[in-house]
Amino acid sequence: MGMLEELRALVGDNGVLDAAEVATRSAGIWRPDNLKARALVRPASTAEVSAVLRWCHANRIAVVTQGGLTGLVHGADASSEELILSLERMRSIEQIDPLQRTATVQAGVTLQGLQEAVESHDMSFPLDLGARGTATLGGNAATNAGGNRVIRYGMTRDMVLGLEVVLADGTVLSSMNNLIKNNTGYDLKQLFIGSEGTLGVITRLVLRLREKPTSTNMAFIGVDSFEHLAHLLKHMDKSLGGTLSAFEVMWQDFYRLVSTAPARGKPPIARDYPFYVLVESQGADEQLDTQRFNATMESAFDSGLIVDAAISQSAADCHDFWALRDDVEQVLQHGLPIVFDISLPISEMQQFADNLATALPTAIGEHRLFIFGHLGDGNLHVAVAVRPEQYAAARPKVEKLVYGALQHCSGSVSAEHGIGLEKKPYLPVSRNASELALMRSIKQTLDPLNLLNPGKVL
Amino acid sequence: MGMLEELRALVGDNGVLDAAEVATRSAGIWRPDNLKARALVRPASTAEVSAVLRWCHANRIAVVTQGGLTGLVHGADASSEELILSLERMRSIEQIDPLQRTATVQAGVTLQGLQEAVESHDMSFPLDLGARGTATLGGNAATNAGGNRVIRYGMTRDMVLGLEVVLADGTVLSSMNNLIKNNTGYDLKQLFIGSEGTLGVITRLVLRLREKPTSTNMAFIGVDSFEHLAHLLKHMDKSLGGTLSAFEVMWQDFYRLVSTAPARGKPPIARDYPFYVLVESQGADEQLDTQRFNATMESAFDSGLIVDAAISQSAADCHDFWALRDDVEQVLQHGLPIVFDISLPISEMQQFADNLATALPTAIGEHRLFIFGHLGDGNLHVAVAVRPEQYAAARPKVEKLVYGALQHCSGSVSAEHGIGLEKKPYLPVSRNASELALMRSIKQTLDPLNLLNPGKVL
Repeated sequence: MGMLEELRALVGDNGVLDAAEVATRSAGIWRPDNLKARALVRPASTAEVSAVLRWCHANRIAVVTQGGLTGLVHGADASSEELILSLERMRSIEQIDPLQRTATVQAGVTLQGLQEAVESHDMSFPLDLGARGTATLGGNAATNAGGNRVIRYGMTRDMVLGLEVVLADGTVLSSMNNLIKNNTGYDLKQLFIGSEGTLGVITRLVLRLREKPTSTNMAFIGVDSFEHLAHLLKHMDKSLGGTLSAFEVMWQDFYRLVSTAPARGKPPIARDYPFYVLVESQGADEQLDTQRFNATMESAFDSGLIVDAAISQSAADCHDFWALRDDVEQVLQHGLPIVFDISLPISEMQQFADNLATALPTAIGEHRLFIFGHLGDGNLHVAVAVRPEQYAAARPKVEKLVYGALQHCSGSVSAEHGIGLEKKPYLPVSRNASELALMRSIKQTLDPLNLLNPGKVL
Repeated sequence: MGMLEELRALVGDNGVLDAAEVATRSAGIWRPDNLKARALVRPASTAEVSAVLRWCHANRIAVVTQGGLTGLVHGADASSEELILSLERMRSIEQIDPLQRTATVQAGVTLQGLQEAVESHDMSFPLDLGARGTATLGGNAATNAGGNRVIRYGMTRDMVLGLEVVLADGTVLSSMNNLIKNNTGYDLKQLFIGSEGTLGVITRLVLRLREKPTSTNMAFIGVDSFEHLAHLLKHMDKSLGGTLSAFEVMWQDFYRLVSTAPARGKPPIARDYPFYVLVESQGADEQLDTQRFNATMESAFDSGLIVDAAISQSAADCHDFWALRDDVEQVLQHGLPIVFDISLPISEMQQFADNLATALPTAIGEHRLFIFGHLGDGNLHVAVAVRPEQYAAARPKVEKLVYGALQHCSGSVSAEHGIGLEKKPYLPVSRNASELALMRSIKQTLDPLNLLNPGKVL
């Protein structure tokens, strides 16, 4: 039998696409190119995933696992020598338990699919990010996705209670814990969360749910200095006492961009402050939460941390505030963006941004710089838009400026997007030789033949 | 040179105790016996820890790392063939950064020492447990300690941003990340958190701080059925919208025990309800938080979830409520306790407790059963007090009942105390063969000579 026949014997005719069929599929929602691979296998169960990996192991064929293909760092790219393992047929929400406050799902369930299913039980799965409609929970866990509400609920890692993983040789590691506390030996799931498919294939998850908040208060705030911004974060976090759910910052250029036509957003406040913040608080009592939110805003004004603000009066206002923050694609107006997803200490941010703005004209000439991000988590997104024909020449120069600065302040070259292929050359900026050596030992222990997403991360 | 001289050359004369000196030291705050070891080494820096471990590695001498010796599972016991590595001289709080909201500490700093230092910056380190005055932060991380406020802030794992660890061969793995988001390769610190000193020696930590809550509301509640208890947890968590900080349950026998002389506690409510709950909410606005707390209590009454309650009117009330919950040593009135620290799904708890109460008289005869714990985290503490002369015979019978029941409901034999030597025979109750095999692979990768806390956990 040939490869395709052998694979079809494992997962059925419908479970295998040949190289030609693979080539008709898009490489991802942000990508202009199509997939390539030796074949694409779509197992429908953990047992089938196990059979496929056992076969790959026996035949020494490398496997790239794919979820919703919404990643941004070429973490799921496959070559024509590799097999793609897609979890698209494993889309079952197996259980939602409102008393235990857990959901048990197959890895191919989309984030939005779970969010909606959970809401009908009056619960919430608080992970949230722009690609929610396509991104899968297996992919979220494999990349330790972050998103909009990390300041309150943490990263995906903090929401995963249990995992089922198939190891490189086909062994099924079932670790479907549904308990918040379980100190029985090494917490193996932590190995796989954020390992980008290089240590095992996540097939099922137990996720922690939360009670659904019923009140939302938001403000769109103008701030006159970075120092005030940093102290405003402390003030809001302290005064909102457990209900702060987002603290998103925009530098002035980004705010002007998303509040000027052709962008559809309208400016909720004047456009001449250096910094803007979107603050969100979610609670359970509309009247008391609004009182507290307004009191918190008032004391921020009184102490000079805020110079201007629009406070949401309706769900439509909240939607409009978020729409401004999320309208990142406006950056494309000004060319092709060189995009960064970085973390750095809050005390270093202003200097970092100023130095970058100063250095860019000399380094690359004409460009536009946009900075925004999850300030509450120390995570900035930086986009440097250049003319398409300048992109190839400018990119390494901008990377050198950004990553060089991060090296000096112990920053992270990837706050939430992961490493994949794209950030791999810069991993040593954020990880030292001992860390990299131990990562390699772990990889060697779990995947000695280097068959799982080879060449990614390390 | 002999062993002691060689070690003194590494850490100074003051840094080494010989076997006779070791034998004068207590084995721990709960322990009647004294320590034993070949010697006890007290390095004063990471470099000295590294030198000691390099020496042990070269000489094939096993090392047991000790923090505050407050553990409950014989996780830091040493034999006379082993060397004790104590972190008692590494007690420096290196930095508290209120803007980045991090603390950087050496591993020998006590939990309470950090709590107090942080409070003076108007911040909070929310890990809290009874042994706070003696337990060290290195030990808290090595055992992934839980405690009283896990429902709001998580376990120690959730508060550790960065670690410095010395590996078995003396390699210093510095991973002192101070960022909330850092998806750059495998998150190595997760390996060491909760590994009970078997994979490396934690020498320094970066810990996440929180803004200090300024309001506390508490209630001591009587509940008439377990079903109401489970729904009360959901109700309080939902209605307190982010401010619920403890949800501690006591079965009736425990409540009567701690509210009857010779215990010093007075009963805040009648003593004939089957279940009692201590609820704590911490926020930032005394007036509004109290309003909300009272409204939440009122709606719980109205819906029948609560039959009686005392609401705190002062800090003294809060102290008294906690004192009842914490007066665990009253169990000693009724003999020697066989103690369990377990997690199980909330839907299984009532049946578990009823079955245990029914089976115990036949299994062991005269005894007293006390159940209490962190219901919000699914974590119960079970104490079966028997006459000292019955202890040895009763213990395996009680263990069989408790752990047998846990096996049937995917419970955990150790919610927060860890495995050590004591729970090691029962690890297979909560972990399957594939999990145990992978744990062994990890141990083999990081400590191939089996020199770090050998025989513990696995």
